[in-house]
Amino acid sequence: MKRTYLCVGLDTDPEKIPAHLRSAQDPIFEFNKQIIDATHEWCVAYKPNIAFYEAMGPKGWESLQRTLEYIPEDHFTIADAKRGDIGNTSTMYAKAFFEQMDFDAITVAPYMGADSVTPFLAFKDKVVILLAHTSNPGSADFQLFRSAEGHTLYEEVIRKSQSWGNTENLMFVVGATRADKIAEIRKLAPDHFFLVPGVGAQGGDLRDVSQQGMTRDCGLLVNSARAIIYASADKDFARAARHEAQRTSEEMSQYLSEFAGW
Amino acid sequence: MKRTYLCVGLDTDPEKIPAHLRSAQDPIFEFNKQIIDATHEWCVAYKPNIAFYEAMGPKGWESLQRTLEYIPEDHFTIADAKRGDIGNTSTMYAKAFFEQMDFDAITVAPYMGADSVTPFLAFKDKVVILLAHTSNPGSADFQLFRSAEGHTLYEEVIRKSQSWGNTENLMFVVGATRADKIAEIRKLAPDHFFLVPGVGAQGGDLRDVSQQGMTRDCGLLVNSARAIIYASADKDFARAARHEAQRTSEEMSQYLSEFAGW
Repeated sequence: MKRTYLCVGLDTDPEKIPAHLRSAQDPIFEFNKQIIDATHEWCVAYKPNIAFYEAMGPKGWESLQRTLEYIPEDHFTIADAKRGDIGNTSTMYAKAFFEQMDFDAITVAPYMGADSVTPFLAFKDKVVILLAHTSNPGSADFQLFRSAEGHTLYEEVIRKSQSWGNTENLMFVVGATRADKIAEIRKLAPDHFFLVPGVGAQGGDLRDVSQQGMTRDCGLLVNSARAIIYASADKDFARAARHEAQRTSEEMSQYLSEFAGW
Repeated sequence: MKRTYLCVGLDTDPEKIPAHLRSAQDPIFEFNKQIIDATHEWCVAYKPNIAFYEAMGPKGWESLQRTLEYIPEDHFTIADAKRGDIGNTSTMYAKAFFEQMDFDAITVAPYMGADSVTPFLAFKDKVVILLAHTSNPGSADFQLFRSAEGHTLYEEVIRKSQSWGNTENLMFVVGATRADKIAEIRKLAPDHFFLVPGVGAQGGDLRDVSQQGMTRDCGLLVNSARAIIYASADKDFARAARHEAQRTSEEMSQYLSEFAGW
C-alpha cells in the first residue's frame, strides 16, 4: 500500500496555467494530464473543484470529463462540487457526477438536511463527503452557531449524518486551519475518513493535522492544490509539481509511522 | 406593471417531456421554448434548476444556455444552483452564472458563511437568493437548530446576511410548506424579496403564503414548476401550461389587490 494520504486538488484556472500550454487544443486538460503524469505516483486521490470547470461553460465540462478519464483507475476521484438540493433534485446531481461522469465521491453541503444528502448515499460504491467544519474564515458564521445544549452546528451535522451513512460511504470535510479542532472532531467520528483541505496555501500544518486526526487506518485524505499544481508557473511546472507531491508524501510517510504505526 | 409574481420553474426532466418532442435536435430546449412561449405573458421570472441540466453533461449546458437566451429580456432569470464555496471559488461559480451565462440571479447555500456568499454579491446588478428556510422535510434537520438565545439557524442566516447585501441584491428562499413561518420571517426581513418554492406540487397554499409574506411592493416571487410544465404529458402540454400559469396569475392578481392594495 502507498505510504501517502495526499489528494491533489485540480483547481485548474485558465489564467494560471503556463503560457506555453495556452495554444493546446484543450489547455486545461493538457495541464491536468501533465500534472497527473507527474504526481500520480505520490498521491492516492484527485479532487477537481468543479467551479473552475463550470466557469468555462460546456467546454469546461469536456475538459473535466477528459481529465477524469485520464486519472489512473487505482486513484480515488472526488468531485468537489458542494451540491445539495431537495430529494429528487439531489438525485439529478448524483446522476451528473456518479453516472454521467464516473466520480467515486462528491462533496455535499448539509444545509438542506437528510433528504438532500441521502439521495447521494443511495448510489452503490460511491462516497459522500459532507461539509462539516470548513477552512475558510466564514466557517465561523454558521458552523460555530451554538445550541442551548452547548454544541455547535458542525457537531450536529457530524452527529446526525452518521445515522444516514456509514464509515464506508460517508466522509467529512474538516478544515486544517485549526488543528486543535480536528482532535475534537475525531472524537465525534472516530472511524470516518476526513477530507482535509487547507494544508499548504491556506496555512494548515500537516504535522499537527496528522497527529490530531489520524486513526489506525489513517483516516485522513489531505488535499493540496495550489502548492502543488502551481509550484512553478513556467515550463517546468510538472517537474515542480512532482517534486512538491513527492516531498509532501515523504513527510506523510513519516507521520504514518509515527501516528498510525504503519 | 404585470399583476403577477409567478416564477415558472424550468425543471425539465428528459424522461418527463412529451414523447413527440424526443426526436427534436435539442428536446430539452424545444420543450422549454414552447413552455416559455406559452407562459411568458403570465409570469415575471423563470428559474431553471441547474441539476436537471448538469445531469445531461455538456449538452445539458448547451440546452440551458439556449433556454436562457430565449427568455424574453423583461423576465427575471434565476439559476437555481445552490452553490457556495470558499472565496475565490465562489467567484468562479459567480462567473459561470453571471458572465459565462447571463443569469440575473443565483440561489446560494449559506453553510460556509460570509466569504462564500459575498463574492456573488460583488457582481453589479446581480442578485443572490440565499437559502434560509427551505420547503423540504430535511429543512428541520439543521435550519431549525436552535441557539442558547432561542433563535434558529435560519433566523441567524437571515439576520447576519443582511449586513452583507441590501434589499436590491439579496433575496431569501423561504419555503411555502409552513405559511405561519413566512409571517415570522417577514418580520426579520421586512423589505427583502422572498423566493417561495413549494407552492403546487410540494403542497404550499398560495393564499396563505401571499397573505403572510406580501409587502406593499409585493415582496414575493412564487415559483411553480411541475404543476405548470407538466400540466399535461401530451401534445397539448404548452396549452395546458399556459392555462395553469394564467389561472395562477389571475389568483395572484386578486391577492395583490387584497394584501398589497395594488
